[in-house]
Amino acid sequence: MKVYNFSAGPSMLPEEVKLSAQKDFLDYEGSGMSVTEMSHRSKWYDAIHQEALASLRKLMNIGDDYDVLFVQGGASQQFAAVPLNLLVKGKADYIVTGNFAGKAAKEATKYGDCVVAASSKDKVFTYIPEGVKFRDGIDYVHITQNNTIFGTRYTDRTFPVADCPIVSDMSSMILSEEVDVNKYGLIYAGAQKNIAPAGLTIVIVRKDLVGHEKDYCPTMLSYKTQADADSLYNTPPCFAIYMAMLVFRHLLKLGGVKEIQKINEYKAKLLYDFIDNSSLYTNPVKPEDRSLMNVPFVTGSDELNAKFVKEAEKAGLVSIKGHKLVGGMRASIYNAMPVEGVEALIAFMKKFETENK
Amino acid sequence: MKVYNFSAGPSMLPEEVKLSAQKDFLDYEGSGMSVTEMSHRSKWYDAIHQEALASLRKLMNIGDDYDVLFVQGGASQQFAAVPLNLLVKGKADYIVTGNFAGKAAKEATKYGDCVVAASSKDKVFTYIPEGVKFRDGIDYVHITQNNTIFGTRYTDRTFPVADCPIVSDMSSMILSEEVDVNKYGLIYAGAQKNIAPAGLTIVIVRKDLVGHEKDYCPTMLSYKTQADADSLYNTPPCFAIYMAMLVFRHLLKLGGVKEIQKINEYKAKLLYDFIDNSSLYTNPVKPEDRSLMNVPFVTGSDELNAKFVKEAEKAGLVSIKGHKLVGGMRASIYNAMPVEGVEALIAFMKKFETENK
Repeated sequence: MKVYNFSAGPSMLPEEVKLSAQKDFLDYEGSGMSVTEMSHRSKWYDAIHQEALASLRKLMNIGDDYDVLFVQGGASQQFAAVPLNLLVKGKADYIVTGNFAGKAAKEATKYGDCVVAASSKDKVFTYIPEGVKFRDGIDYVHITQNNTIFGTRYTDRTFPVADCPIVSDMSSMILSEEVDVNKYGLIYAGAQKNIAPAGLTIVIVRKDLVGHEKDYCPTMLSYKTQADADSLYNTPPCFAIYMAMLVFRHLLKLGGVKEIQKINEYKAKLLYDFIDNSSLYTNPVKPEDRSLMNVPFVTGSDELNAKFVKEAEKAGLVSIKGHKLVGGMRASIYNAMPVEGVEALIAFMKKFETENK
Repeated sequence: MKVYNFSAGPSMLPEEVKLSAQKDFLDYEGSGMSVTEMSHRSKWYDAIHQEALASLRKLMNIGDDYDVLFVQGGASQQFAAVPLNLLVKGKADYIVTGNFAGKAAKEATKYGDCVVAASSKDKVFTYIPEGVKFRDGIDYVHITQNNTIFGTRYTDRTFPVADCPIVSDMSSMILSEEVDVNKYGLIYAGAQKNIAPAGLTIVIVRKDLVGHEKDYCPTMLSYKTQADADSLYNTPPCFAIYMAMLVFRHLLKLGGVKEIQKINEYKAKLLYDFIDNSSLYTNPVKPEDRSLMNVPFVTGSDELNAKFVKEAEKAGLVSIKGHKLVGGMRASIYNAMPVEGVEALIAFMKKFETENK
């Protein structure tokens, strides 16, 4: 049975990427070795590392005034690394638009005068606050650009206007739509949604923000450590970086972020339109703030939601259960989810609606 | 050509493990998904995670009074995590027996009164200090149980005697020989030498040492965070943990650590005996402190060393160049290096010796 994996992360990888990784698993490019076991100082791995870095720069049009780092620990580790490295004046403002945004804001309070400048908690995180005012003299404003659990995202309308660097957690939307990197001081993202298997974290940081870490910042969390060593200070997560390289190649071949964005907008519109026209399903998010990547929806009853999840799994539509904070269902339709996967989901939803009227 | 990979890490994985991972790469146990893309909350991944934890407990005979954690960042990140979590009185003693031991000691000085109690730097780290005295009232003694670059290891004779917990970096010897976990307060190890691809770090910590982290310890570096969440606080490096599970299965099938230790001792003796009886090659390490895993050796000349490395690679004996701090050659002969690999190396060394007399 063909399986479509709607997991919020780790999530689907492109078919051609998986096939390529499988084919080369025992012997990468005649090295006689698997990428899982080769030295990170070998010529084979070095070529992978450099291609991955260069491809990401190309895909996101990242200028020379930014460092691109491959690190470990996930976005959760960046919740500490960001204030440890960026707090110089000692103050930062956070916009809390969901669970992970809240965790980032809380972690930052360990390291300085970090406060919540705005929150959408009042309406269960179903929108993105607009026109937020920030304090003077802050080191940065932190946003979570796409909220995986609640299914919202920032657009130009809600993007913060501030005199300081903007820091963005792009974990669940990186490479899904075009962004102007120059609008950010720092971008970070766990790779396990749109880029690679879990275990790799991307950091894109403006060079002038590097080198100001606190005395007690762990060496491994210092951006300067990683930038100076080209992300090879110690052994990097080589296999995840290799898979990232394959995903970047795949995206470049497709025509880059611009092209995948069109497909993502098409997939999301299909699903939201169906939900909005349905008499059974609803999505609670303010329409103009809806995520292109994570689409939460519910039926009117917990019982029916549970039945949906169970029957969907039997039909090959897996990991579609909503996060416990929201309940119901969530379809994560990242870059690697084909249009056919969304169509299969909609067909199932139609059938389920008819059967459960 | 059959390739034997003598890399110090990442390093060889067992053939049957690689074959199994390749076979199941596109569809793990009928899930229709690759382990590289499945949710870390799925039933398939949960079974992998639990088996990996349970197998490691079995292989190392780890009691219920210890937590076993799967984390990220490598041993280098533990250089900070250990003092951040374990310094309560604020003092610790380090024995410096090599490059990484020195890095661990230096990182710890950020967090408290951490000093070098003994060092073997006087003889270029070619031995392990004996009978070291420690200060009173310290939180722990830190050792690096096997020194990857210099090719030394601790044995019963040199094992520190102290009234406080012993913390050991076992990165390059974990699961290669039997150890009594009860002699340690904390054990940590990067997985990329004897366990799995890079990107996974093992921590085994006595439960009474958990929960004392400093206020400013990043949440992700807190042992309590990881212990409370069963190493699922955020997305773990799922594929590396899956490969670890396969390696643990493989070791259990072989008969456990006791059996692989016999093979490791046999391999190391073959190589050291050959070197000691050769008129071209020498190993500078004090014989009773020699590593079972990393065997550095040199010819009399830099030119000949370079020629050796080049010709060895052509003969399929790869990544045998010594670390820049030592020069010459280094054969890392971890668990997954078959006896035939060591035999092939010795045959090559003989031939090279004859040709270059």
